[in-house]
Amino acid sequence: TKEDFDLASVYVSDAQYNRNIYFDTSPQAVRLYLLYNHWLPKVLLYFFILVVLSLAVFEEPAVLPLPMWATMLVELLCVLVFTFRLAHYARVIPRDKFWKDAKNICIMVVLMLTMVDMIIYGSLKAANCYALRWSRVLRPLLLVNVTEGRQLRRAFRSIRNALPQIFYVFLLFMFSVLMFSLMALKLLGKRGLTTINGAPYFTNYLEIVFDLYVLVTTANSPDVMMPAYNSSFFFAIFFIVYILINTYIFMSVFLAVVYNNYKKYLKEEIRQLVRAKRHKMVRAFAVLQERREEGGEPVVTQANWNQVVRLVRSDISNAHRELLWSVCDDKNQGFIGKVAFVQLADLLNIEVITLKTRPHPLQRLCPAFYLSAPSRLLCRMVQHRAFVIVYDLIILVNAVFIGLDEENPMIANSEWVFLALYLIEILLKLYVFEPRGFFSRHSFWNWFDTIIVVSALIATIVNSTLKSSGGYTSRQILDIVFILRVLRLIRVVDSIKRFRTIINTLIRIGPAILTFGQLIIVVYYVFAMVGMELFKNKVRFFEDPSDPAAANCGNALLTGTTFAQLHYCKNNFNNVVSSFILLVELTVVNQWHVLSSGFAIVTHMSARIFFVFFHIIVVIVIINIFVAFVLEAFFVEY
Amino acid sequence: TKEDFDLASVYVSDAQYNRNIYFDTSPQAVRLYLLYNHWLPKVLLYFFILVVLSLAVFEEPAVLPLPMWATMLVELLCVLVFTFRLAHYARVIPRDKFWKDAKNICIMVVLMLTMVDMIIYGSLKAANCYALRWSRVLRPLLLVNVTEGRQLRRAFRSIRNALPQIFYVFLLFMFSVLMFSLMALKLLGKRGLTTINGAPYFTNYLEIVFDLYVLVTTANSPDVMMPAYNSSFFFAIFFIVYILINTYIFMSVFLAVVYNNYKKYLKEEIRQLVRAKRHKMVRAFAVLQERREEGGEPVVTQANWNQVVRLVRSDISNAHRELLWSVCDDKNQGFIGKVAFVQLADLLNIEVITLKTRPHPLQRLCPAFYLSAPSRLLCRMVQHRAFVIVYDLIILVNAVFIGLDEENPMIANSEWVFLALYLIEILLKLYVFEPRGFFSRHSFWNWFDTIIVVSALIATIVNSTLKSSGGYTSRQILDIVFILRVLRLIRVVDSIKRFRTIINTLIRIGPAILTFGQLIIVVYYVFAMVGMELFKNKVRFFEDPSDPAAANCGNALLTGTTFAQLHYCKNNFNNVVSSFILLVELTVVNQWHVLSSGFAIVTHMSARIFFVFFHIIVVIVIINIFVAFVLEAFFVEY
Ligand code: NA
Repeated sequence: TKEDFDLASVYVSDAQYNRNIYFDTSPQAVRLYLLYNHWLPKVLLYFFILVVLSLAVFEEPAVLPLPMWATMLVELLCVLVFTFRLAHYARVIPRDKFWKDAKNICIMVVLMLTMVDMIIYGSLKAANCYALRWSRVLRPLLLVNVTEGRQLRRAFRSIRNALPQIFYVFLLFMFSVLMFSLMALKLLGKRGLTTINGAPYFTNYLEIVFDLYVLVTTANSPDVMMPAYNSSFFFAIFFIVYILINTYIFMSVFLAVVYNNYKKYLKEEIRQLVRAKRHKMVRAFAVLQERREEGGEPVVTQANWNQVVRLVRSDISNAHRELLWSVCDDKNQGFIGKVAFVQLADLLNIEVITLKTRPHPLQRLCPAFYLSAPSRLLCRMVQHRAFVIVYDLIILVNAVFIGLDEENPMIANSEWVFLALYLIEILLKLYVFEPRGFFSRHSFWNWFDTIIVVSALIATIVNSTLKSSGGYTSRQILDIVFILRVLRLIRVVDSIKRFRTIINTLIRIGPAILTFGQLIIVVYYVFAMVGMELFKNKVRFFEDPSDPAAANCGNALLTGTTFAQLHYCKNNFNNVVSSFILLVELTVVNQWHVLSSGFAIVTHMSARIFFVFFHIIVVIVIINIFVAFVLEAFFVEY
Repeated sequence: TKEDFDLASVYVSDAQYNRNIYFDTSPQAVRLYLLYNHWLPKVLLYFFILVVLSLAVFEEPAVLPLPMWATMLVELLCVLVFTFRLAHYARVIPRDKFWKDAKNICIMVVLMLTMVDMIIYGSLKAANCYALRWSRVLRPLLLVNVTEGRQLRRAFRSIRNALPQIFYVFLLFMFSVLMFSLMALKLLGKRGLTTINGAPYFTNYLEIVFDLYVLVTTANSPDVMMPAYNSSFFFAIFFIVYILINTYIFMSVFLAVVYNNYKKYLKEEIRQLVRAKRHKMVRAFAVLQERREEGGEPVVTQANWNQVVRLVRSDISNAHRELLWSVCDDKNQGFIGKVAFVQLADLLNIEVITLKTRPHPLQRLCPAFYLSAPSRLLCRMVQHRAFVIVYDLIILVNAVFIGLDEENPMIANSEWVFLALYLIEILLKLYVFEPRGFFSRHSFWNWFDTIIVVSALIATIVNSTLKSSGGYTSRQILDIVFILRVLRLIRVVDSIKRFRTIINTLIRIGPAILTFGQLIIVVYYVFAMVGMELFKNKVRFFEDPSDPAAANCGNALLTGTTFAQLHYCKNNFNNVVSSFILLVELTVVNQWHVLSSGFAIVTHMSARIFFVFFHIIVVIVIINIFVAFVLEAFFVEY
């Protein structure tokens, strides 16, 4: 029946895209499930997640302030959308499965808490009381717990699995830091040494622990050592041993533990993925199967198979489908067994490149011209190695011209020459190569070239039009022109084979890096929300550097501190954008002790805990997972 | 014959210690070879290598200056010793092998160049001309190329093998840095921004390249970004993308490439090691073999086997040897074939622990007392888990007491109580456990405890004697007492099982870390020698901080620079010790741009090349090899 085909095609498509959802098999549930997996509601869902996350830009403390009712109305809309999506999901899968699934519970709790918080906040604000939007911290949980966030959940699970082991190494590491701090207190505290600011050196145990923790991150090396080193050579040994043990050995051990767990967990996840995929295909087979003879093995006939494949992938050609069938039915029997059927999910994921052999459209339209001697000579020239070399030389000359002063009119005009040369290159290639092959999905560099050159052309034309019309040059457009010009030079990398393999590896691990992007955004968002509540408007930035308040970031407590002296006022938690940039700076680690001390001075010493905690979570755990991930990807791909 | 047994035992011993030397098999060469492998000449050789390396302490620029004739005389002696050792080696191995071996040629060239340099230097100095001891750079090559430096050579080979791949990634990385610098110049150079010192911001291409190279190491983050960020939010994106690509992705790729090569190379090396070992054992077998019957397999009889094992390891007991034989001759035939014989090298490396079952010496001397009820109760108590817990609590109380003020006489006297308690613990354990078992080679913590407690006892007694006799307390002894007190606390780690596994892993990889210690000393030594020639006495340290010259490190060029402001004057190349400490600081990376800029200011901008080169060699290559090594060791051991 049609319903059976629908059901089977849903199973196959789930297997193909690694969806592991136990949906209800009733016909209307299957129809709802098909709708649930449609791209449009998915895109809408991600759009509304983006909206609810970016509300932070408009809420107090805002980059672009909007009235409270506006942001709250938008948030309410988002909550409704998420509720609707969840209700849809509840209709699709069996009730007991729905209530057992932690991610559904999590979304419901988040939505409920958000409503509660909005009501409390609204009424408190209406009564002019102090109010806190604490539920904003929970928003990124939506991104994690939507059905489509599989990769992200996997990343979080791999972190959670590594945590117990990281924890034990961390305890040992902290024990080492505490022991060294005790030694430092006893060795250096009574010598009457002073720091560069004249403060007593290493006399307070807690300060020493913080300083030595910072030294592990190398951020205060060698400054923290200098007073001791200036008093005697021998104290340098203490710090060198400390760095060797805590920075080099312990930090490598953290990476080792994270990497080890990551590998183990990755293997387990892949095993589960394969099992789930097989399970889905077996169910599809069970729906489609029929028996050829009494007591024989159940099989699927070519007709049924064709119908399902047509439902799953309506975009593939008949020839392609024939090819897939001949791979499955290698004995040419007209039916296939379970083992051959299960392969289908993987077969559908293989891209069959049939385009290469296709003739150029010009050859079809005007064969006499396209196959004439001059045209064929041109084709040979463009395909020749020398063509690549000539264009690499042009790029190098272009690089020199970019480096030169663009005020010179000769150089400004040369830009048009280079643009023309690049355009001619693309047109020539399009003349020689089949356009659909040229712009196929995996031809990264062809896309790159074309987009960059066309954008550069548009931007340059807009720029000259503006210039010649009003004499006014938009700085932003000029910036874009410059960036595009420099980006064009990257192309040269593709000509060198050794580079190409490295770059291709990086491009292939690109999509997975996006998962890490989401992961880091989730963590940053939580820290940004907490940070804004704790530190907003304590440190202020003044556009005008001559403003007397600019010298201490508008806070008298910061007068004379390193934070103010280094002009770090813009590194603050006054809105979500600057919070994110500050968190990036903290991730990079350098000078994080200056930043954290700045915020500790304007609030309380315990504020450092926030920054140390951020360091542990992001640098020790997440960055190490990232490195482990790049290592593993590189070993597999390179 | 006896000579055959000698030859066979040399082969077996070579196999056991992984020596891969093709010595001459004539009886006198074998005798010379036995002498060559004796521990005494080896220790002497390493002693003289240490002497020749530490000459740098006494030569200009010296920590402890000695007259030129004295250091040169010592160096001459060292050269003689090395020549003698090499001549010895030449007598041991066939002539053609000797001249084909790169390490012998290398030692000869180094020794010859050293002699030439000494003569030139001596005569130039005698004529009061400027002279340079350039051959000092070559000294560490002796450490690498001595026969015993196998591990170190292997480390260098693994680096050399990784170099081509590192080089291509490095080129790509530099290309990226240069492109970003060009973009930075175009985007930021014309905005009229200024740095914190009022200097123009990002206007000079080479300066930008250096600044962005430093940013890859994170050392000038976020300072290098602040002027641009203060002018607009958007520029932060440029720097964030830069850090993401160049710091996070490229640096992970460097680690991946190094690690990948390291693993590949390690496997190949181990394969070769196993092959060489087998080869040696096969040769030993060939010497000892006899035929039991016509046309039968050659075998080695138990009598011959016994004689060889007695020659190879005279220290093992008859019972142990019987055990080894019974493992080899599992069919109890009285002779063994080639396959069983080849195992011997590995069997000899296995430590057979026979001590545990041995009764306590007191039991033998005075059984009535040792086996009495109170004595047995004591033994049970000491072996009880509560005993460990009680002592862990004592350690914790001790930690609190150490943290308190030691001027308080109650606390000062409590030290005696704790010392007594720790001594009693050791004595009790020695009473309960068999002493040779207690102090066996692998009982790390027993050795640790005893050494620390006994040293603490001695140091505390010396300290109080000094105090009570003259009232004068030596600061150095007090420091040692404090360090020992804190080290005692580390013991607590051993009680927690989770920690013990981590610590044991670290202890097991300890010996291999020593190879890295040698590697890093070789590289540091070369850079220290070059650095001292380039930068000696350009930056000076003044003990008295009120000296007006201290403010600019005795060099007017440094006035007002960050280098001088941060009191970095002692970070200089004025002697080998401060050079080494400075190189450690450069390895830690933080503030390396300030250090390198300081030396560039007092000499020439191109001096930065020295520091960038150091960064590439030590941080990008060697530290990554170290991390790869810790990772691999951890995966194998943990
Ligand atoms: Na740093």
